Amino acid sequence: MAFELTQEFLDELQVKIDSLDQTAIAQTLEGIHFADIADIFENLDAADAKLCYDLVDEDVAADALAEMEDGARTELLKFFTPKEIASQVDLLDTDDAADILNELSEQEKDDVIAKLEDKEHAADVASLLDYDEDTAGALMQTEYIEAKAKWPVNRCIIELRRQAEEVEKVYTIYVVDDEERLMGILPLKRLLFAQNETLIKDILIDDNIKSVKTHDSKEDVAAAMEKYDLVTIPVVDRQEKLVGRITIDDVVDVIREEAEKDYQLASGISDNVETSSTVWQNTRSRIPWILIGLVGGVASSQIIRGYENQIDINPALAFFIPLVVATAGNVGVQSSAIIVQGLASKDFQVKNLLSLIWKETKVGVIVGLSCAIIIFGLNFLLAGDLQLGITISITLLLVILIAAILGASIPLILDRMKIDPALATGPFITTANDIIGLTVYFIVAYFVYM
Amino acid sequence: MAFELTQEFLDELQVKIDSLDQTAIAQTLEGIHFADIADIFENLDAADAKLCYDLVDEDVAADALAEMEDGARTELLKFFTPKEIASQVDLLDTDDAADILNELSEQEKDDVIAKLEDKEHAADVASLLDYDEDTAGALMQTEYIEAKAKWPVNRCIIELRRQAEEVEKVYTIYVVDDEERLMGILPLKRLLFAQNETLIKDILIDDNIKSVKTHDSKEDVAAAMEKYDLVTIPVVDRQEKLVGRITIDDVVDVIREEAEKDYQLASGISDNVETSSTVWQNTRSRIPWILIGLVGGVASSQIIRGYENQIDINPALAFFIPLVVATAGNVGVQSSAIIVQGLASKDFQVKNLLSLIWKETKVGVIVGLSCAIIIFGLNFLLAGDLQLGITISITLLLVILIAAILGASIPLILDRMKIDPALATGPFITTANDIIGLTVYFIVAYFVYM
Repeated sequence: MAFELTQEFLDELQVKIDSLDQTAIAQTLEGIHFADIADIFENLDAADAKLCYDLVDEDVAADALAEMEDGARTELLKFFTPKEIASQVDLLDTDDAADILNELSEQEKDDVIAKLEDKEHAADVASLLDYDEDTAGALMQTEYIEAKAKWPVNRCIIELRRQAEEVEKVYTIYVVDDEERLMGILPLKRLLFAQNETLIKDILIDDNIKSVKTHDSKEDVAAAMEKYDLVTIPVVDRQEKLVGRITIDDVVDVIREEAEKDYQLASGISDNVETSSTVWQNTRSRIPWILIGLVGGVASSQIIRGYENQIDINPALAFFIPLVVATAGNVGVQSSAIIVQGLASKDFQVKNLLSLIWKETKVGVIVGLSCAIIIFGLNFLLAGDLQLGITISITLLLVILIAAILGASIPLILDRMKIDPALATGPFITTANDIIGLTVYFIVAYFVYM
Repeated sequence: MAFELTQEFLDELQVKIDSLDQTAIAQTLEGIHFADIADIFENLDAADAKLCYDLVDEDVAADALAEMEDGARTELLKFFTPKEIASQVDLLDTDDAADILNELSEQEKDDVIAKLEDKEHAADVASLLDYDEDTAGALMQTEYIEAKAKWPVNRCIIELRRQAEEVEKVYTIYVVDDEERLMGILPLKRLLFAQNETLIKDILIDDNIKSVKTHDSKEDVAAAMEKYDLVTIPVVDRQEKLVGRITIDDVVDVIREEAEKDYQLASGISDNVETSSTVWQNTRSRIPWILIGLVGGVASSQIIRGYENQIDINPALAFFIPLVVATAGNVGVQSSAIIVQGLASKDFQVKNLLSLIWKETKVGVIVGLSCAIIIFGLNFLLAGDLQLGITISITLLLVILIAAILGASIPLILDRMKIDPALATGPFITTANDIIGLTVYFIVAYFVYM
């Protein structure tokens, strides 16, 4: 944990960049981990970052490029010629290489691929570009270590030594048959401690081997690796042939992104906004939700206008509008969040639709009754207005119950319709509940004051 | 991905359990991955789960126990004698063993530890129980593979073969000096391909080795492993001596939990609620936030009551109460969510406090002006009430601006005070913005209608 990026460090680096002092820049950046170098690049202007890029050890620079956030990397790549990009891509694993190429135009992609020196690497990288970005195929790398089931241990070690030069991190050896079909795995540990003549097929592990298909969604990959505590997972094609592997570090990003996306949707942010985003990006990702809220607010105003004569009879009804809408909104968001989380974690019980909605109904009754009693008591003590107390209490009970049932149902319905259920949380459900809450409020008031 | 848990599977299993058909149960559960066995146990009554537990292969059963969710596991453990728990703990890695022991009372912990057969294992597990649950010490396991820097490769392989029997997953060998201080790491790959006489200190990797201290927070561990793409990280004590390692699968849980916690706080849920939680757990974790909302609603009603004569003059003011409070709430939640995420991802730029609040101010002005213009135009077209249009437009501009600034400031202030900034999102900030929004609304109305 030695290095920590500070404003002082950046300021000093900037001085050296401005004076074009290449030796000083190279010295400053030497020995720093590529992930920190990536952070530094993200905090510089793209032109300055390119200057530094050329002064860092080429392996570190290529890894840093792979590690950078998409936005900052796209800017930086504008300062690269296709030839320069190709020389970086040559140094990277196929999955990182494909990520970088996917930020270029189709024409640029072809230019870079044509300039790659290692033709086998070029073919592997090119093959990865064709997978849908949300699938296992787009996450996988073609670097992995493979042994044939029929090999003895000593031949296996010789073959692996050759393969291992290309594979940065070796955790598990995949064992395949003559048709390249995945038969099992061989932990490096077993190989290290086996006799020379033993056949691989006699020491492989073949029960409960988890693999994914190239067309499986990346959420499914993440769920499987998380559930089964895997560091790598083999990827097979539709014929069960081994074509790649996915490592946990890429899946950690998927898990983080997925959780952040739900959080953002619940908070009413439609795009990936970061503290480093520009004012314009920030505004753009927020304004759709504010407009939904605005439309809901205007709709609410028309509902209240429709019941104007009730407010004329008892102006105190207007006082409790925020109470009714806020409570409905809060309960609805809670219910939907619980379901969205259950769906996200692939909780088995979520499939039990009716029982879930029934449970939310029971929670709604308990919470609704509690709130109704508290407000009735409070109103009785403070205002002594029995009709108003009855109106608000009955409204709260009904509104909470409806909000809980709706909050639970909408994400489940969206999920069935293959729409992201997280859309149901946040401003969307709050706005819907505002409108329903107000309608219930004035209908109850109509009957109580009738 | 062969096995998938279905209701039919559970129903069939339940029939076999009810008829106490041990052979059939054992056959049904045979060959299933321990993570799936854990799922099955979670979906059975604890007594039934115990019956199944005793019929599953003991290694699989122990791993399943380690994998279960805390709540269901606590229930299941009630059916175990201390001796039975001890026999499971003997089979588990130290970190999993400590997790299970931490669900027992202090007396039960001592009973179980006294009954452990492997005394060295017992000492290791006992030592882990003393770490604060939020630190690296509580996440780590004492199983790791260690080599002395002075060993040659062939001695190293012999020593490792002995150590490796105890360590389930081997990824990296930690190299220490004679005082057990961490000097570097040795990838298994390098050992596999090195000459017999080479000294370990000549092939180890010692630059940019990341380690954590036992007292580092688990969030820091997760951030470091995620940033540096690590599968394991060594843990050292205050004297830099190697005491354990943390593997990525445990950190994936930390990342998931952290993201879920923020999401839950933003949705107004105080505790870990899952779809499998009881109605009572569910209610308990939600009601505090609903009560905050209720208090806010009552406060709002008193504010409106204070401005009752303004509503008497122009009843249409009451119509737009939901619009004002909803917009203020939505903007506040958005602003706080962006800051909370920045803080959670240890985004460097977050440290630049003033510039962040300044950026939110600019976003607030843009969003506020847009909404003000839209509502002014809409009101002009529909109602033609100029004074009302001016009141609502000015109110929206001010309220959005205040909500954006407050939304950004509160999490930053909480973070400085070492309070979880995610507390600032959700019902808390919505309620605060309701009250501020209403106050601004009626003050603006006072001046416009004066």
